[in-house]
Amino acid sequence: MSRERLRALREELARQGVQAFLVPRGDEYQNEYVPASDERLAWLTDFTGSAGMAAVATEHAALFVDGRYTLQAQQELGDQPIDQENLGMGNIADWLCSQLKEGQALGYDPRLHTEPSLALLKKRLGERDIALRPLEQNPVDAVWSDRPTPPCGAARPHPHTFTGEHSAEKRKRIAELLADKRADALWLPNPEVCAWLFNIRGSDVPHLPVALASALLYRDGTATLYLSKEAVGEALIEHLNSEVTLVSDKSELFAAAKRHHVAKVWVDPQITNCWTLQQLRALDIELLQERDPITQAKACKNAVELDGARAAHERDGAALSEFLAELPEAVAAGTADNSFGELEAVQLLRARREAREGFSDDSFDSISGYGPNGAIVHYRVDRESSLALKPEGIYLIDSGGQYPDGTTDVTRTVALGEFPPLAREHFTRVLKGHIAIATLRFPKGTCGEQIDAFARKSLWDVGLDYAHGTGHGVGSFLSVHEGPQRIGKAASGVALQPGMILSNEPGFYLTGQYGIRIENLIFVKECAEHHGFFEFEELTLTPIDRELIDADLLTDREREWLNNYHQRVRETLMPLVNEKTQVWLQEATQPIG
Amino acid sequence: MSRERLRALREELARQGVQAFLVPRGDEYQNEYVPASDERLAWLTDFTGSAGMAAVATEHAALFVDGRYTLQAQQELGDQPIDQENLGMGNIADWLCSQLKEGQALGYDPRLHTEPSLALLKKRLGERDIALRPLEQNPVDAVWSDRPTPPCGAARPHPHTFTGEHSAEKRKRIAELLADKRADALWLPNPEVCAWLFNIRGSDVPHLPVALASALLYRDGTATLYLSKEAVGEALIEHLNSEVTLVSDKSELFAAAKRHHVAKVWVDPQITNCWTLQQLRALDIELLQERDPITQAKACKNAVELDGARAAHERDGAALSEFLAELPEAVAAGTADNSFGELEAVQLLRARREAREGFSDDSFDSISGYGPNGAIVHYRVDRESSLALKPEGIYLIDSGGQYPDGTTDVTRTVALGEFPPLAREHFTRVLKGHIAIATLRFPKGTCGEQIDAFARKSLWDVGLDYAHGTGHGVGSFLSVHEGPQRIGKAASGVALQPGMILSNEPGFYLTGQYGIRIENLIFVKECAEHHGFFEFEELTLTPIDRELIDADLLTDREREWLNNYHQRVRETLMPLVNEKTQVWLQEATQPIG
Repeated sequence: MSRERLRALREELARQGVQAFLVPRGDEYQNEYVPASDERLAWLTDFTGSAGMAAVATEHAALFVDGRYTLQAQQELGDQPIDQENLGMGNIADWLCSQLKEGQALGYDPRLHTEPSLALLKKRLGERDIALRPLEQNPVDAVWSDRPTPPCGAARPHPHTFTGEHSAEKRKRIAELLADKRADALWLPNPEVCAWLFNIRGSDVPHLPVALASALLYRDGTATLYLSKEAVGEALIEHLNSEVTLVSDKSELFAAAKRHHVAKVWVDPQITNCWTLQQLRALDIELLQERDPITQAKACKNAVELDGARAAHERDGAALSEFLAELPEAVAAGTADNSFGELEAVQLLRARREAREGFSDDSFDSISGYGPNGAIVHYRVDRESSLALKPEGIYLIDSGGQYPDGTTDVTRTVALGEFPPLAREHFTRVLKGHIAIATLRFPKGTCGEQIDAFARKSLWDVGLDYAHGTGHGVGSFLSVHEGPQRIGKAASGVALQPGMILSNEPGFYLTGQYGIRIENLIFVKECAEHHGFFEFEELTLTPIDRELIDADLLTDREREWLNNYHQRVRETLMPLVNEKTQVWLQEATQPIG
Repeated sequence: MSRERLRALREELARQGVQAFLVPRGDEYQNEYVPASDERLAWLTDFTGSAGMAAVATEHAALFVDGRYTLQAQQELGDQPIDQENLGMGNIADWLCSQLKEGQALGYDPRLHTEPSLALLKKRLGERDIALRPLEQNPVDAVWSDRPTPPCGAARPHPHTFTGEHSAEKRKRIAELLADKRADALWLPNPEVCAWLFNIRGSDVPHLPVALASALLYRDGTATLYLSKEAVGEALIEHLNSEVTLVSDKSELFAAAKRHHVAKVWVDPQITNCWTLQQLRALDIELLQERDPITQAKACKNAVELDGARAAHERDGAALSEFLAELPEAVAAGTADNSFGELEAVQLLRARREAREGFSDDSFDSISGYGPNGAIVHYRVDRESSLALKPEGIYLIDSGGQYPDGTTDVTRTVALGEFPPLAREHFTRVLKGHIAIATLRFPKGTCGEQIDAFARKSLWDVGLDYAHGTGHGVGSFLSVHEGPQRIGKAASGVALQPGMILSNEPGFYLTGQYGIRIENLIFVKECAEHHGFFEFEELTLTPIDRELIDADLLTDREREWLNNYHQRVRETLMPLVNEKTQVWLQEATQPIG
């Protein structure tokens, strides 16, 4: 199959006069999840991971993936004539240098890359006189005969009861930043920033409730918004009113910029594709290349959004608790015929969430890992990999829901019966890290990378660690992975601000045995006791498995945190769950001594 | 006085055809301490702080200093016609924009600035059509009639017993990096990197035992070294041997580059002045602008250097302990006539250090702060500021010595008698932070900014913090402030490596009352128990004042650390100190319960 596709693609490359081509995972908006019509990498290579890049040259082809996808890529590539390499622009450059000769050209689709992401490649290939050539038509699209139609679902207003701030108000305060920078307009490169600024939502992308869009905001607070014709209905037009002009062709955005006499536009090169920059430059518009201000504004939730998040988390916690309460019986019932596996667990949890008001989608593909599968950090269960759950060992479930009032993301690790004795120490050390973040007070100006190690210290003490970040930002009925805030080892330079929602998810993974992760969402708020200091408030409400805790390893303060948390979980969820879950909840939230 | 200097300087600027001029603190090597002949900023403004910049325009002049020097600059400027502003290139650009008109020019001495340090200024002034003009002769030097002669002390070999690695070996391993980068030569921009690479020392700069030098290292491991004629004697020539060619005029370095057919040179633009880059470019030599590799190599001390550091710290700890043992009597004796003040304390400590083998200089100007003066983080005592010490309150002494086997830097805070009750909690919280760093285990790859917050957490818990870094790198008989490693809030991107020496110096400052800081030097080593993990070993050996500790605030593990540390201090120093100090040491190192 892929042999056929590669042949067709190479013919197209020859037709367009280039000797190699890059196929990235992302779409033109650099979305994490992409519409089926943009699954070019999967079409070409069968690789379905969430990050990766293929390079196709005349003789060879290669797929570049990072450490978490090494195994999956091997399986999915099978015996196709595609080499597997480590992701990283340096490696991609090395590979291309080995395939291309002086005077040849690498083609790329300028819509699918940003300039910073290509800078190293440009330098390395340039040194060898190999050109980087933007192509007008994507050669994959040219030969992808059964390519799905791009999505064009309806865009709908997102009500003020959830946003707490009218679009006109948002546009006004962002427009003020434009005046400060002497820019005439701001380029909104992707659906997420458009969703926030215009208070609209849609359903064009899996797990991300947005309509595909981009826009220009002018200094007077008016805007031109691109949405596909099919996405626009009466309610939306009324919602946007006369201050927002709709266009249904992307090129009209550039025409609008000209009409509005835009001489200088603020664009964030990290999230804006090359094609857009080309178009703007072709119009002689000056580019102010700075960090996008909406990403920052969107990250700091207002009081209404935080109330929404609290409410969504109560319903979500009730659903997850019902699932956890039912789990032992489901496992027992399925033991004889292996009929209850990781996949069925996901379905059961999904059913409990679907019963909750406002649930619209999972916020990402659930990670449901039993025993050794739990140790695969980015594991995604399918029919082939799904292990049957037994009344023993350790099970990890990382999942979340999209609700109009909030986005959730929660991980619980539970014992299904007897388990390896060392797991109790590992779980307790992960819990200590979790509590260290949850109880932290920190001064204004502190960045996530400055507090990340608190989540790891109890593991570091015994020579252990985990190979992922501690926390990512989360949107309000938007992406479950949202910037700019994060808690991790890598420098972000982003100070944590009141209203930012983050995950707190330390873990530990023993390859071939089990995975442990404890994840709550938290948000930053002013410290009640100390001026100039911030602290976190918990959003997630679901018991943490007491079976897995070694109480002797906890300090008094840690025990107190756990018991208080469980008391709050019990009191909040009790009225929201079925009788069976009430009994379970009563037991699961008892104080530890 | 300064009116006269400003008038002369402005005449010189007019003569050279520029309307403004920058006077930075640093010399052409960007040294922290500079020779008297390079104290241009102090000559012009009377400001003697270690960081700052003056700008002189036709009508006005301004001195830019950072927060720690606000007060000192006010006092030293007095009523001179020089405005005081906050340091920062943005502020300097604002001020210059207010003084200069389109078409005018700002002059600068290209030897005293790096290109990155001028980049913002160039952009901002460029936008207004104001030129930045490098001047051949520094206008300050042209009118500074009583300028001291530049130093030209002897350079001497630094023996193998202290360096543990011959210059030829060092040159060989650095030259291998050049081959990897396809560079023909490495530019050594300053005396510190030359001192390390060639195993030479000198005495041209206060507190820094180096001879003024710069050099070129070639890919074959040979080198051309600039040293003033007066610096070079027989022993040095023999030490350097035929692989290192000496030149006594800086311009000969560039001629040598040409003679060696250097087509591409590795220069670190962060530490190399503009003038050097101009000279290299004028010769059509390609510049590979990357981080200097010697700075990194020099930071990782070998076993001989670490043994030297241990030995130097034993002698230094003995000297400081003698001082601390004598302090109460000295204070008591001086009480009646205020004859024992902060300044006399510095002299007493200096005398105790001078009695120790190999002592050559303080490693920096001692910070000797009694009561409220202790709360001024970068306080430097002089006759006017010196407070008389009384048998009450809190005294902070931060000092260090230069020994041929190692450089020391240590801070102790001691109670001289009764003290404000809250100080005990503050001191204990600082100590908890100190112990958190001292006992930390961390995985390979961890940077200083990722562990800094451990030093602050016990203060953060009660809404407090300190406004300086937690640790800086320290050289081997070189600078007491050495990069690239550090422990602080700001991102360094530098992983801590075995052999790196760092200070561990959390503090707390109550303005107008007292300052607390506990500083030991530590170094990074492989963790004995856990593969892939690092830990610290203590170098500094001096008791920590038990009077100021609230033992109830310490955990068992913290008490254990303190008691073990004091046991080691006692056992190591007892044979090295006089009888009086032995009695004191016995008492000062008793375990706490």
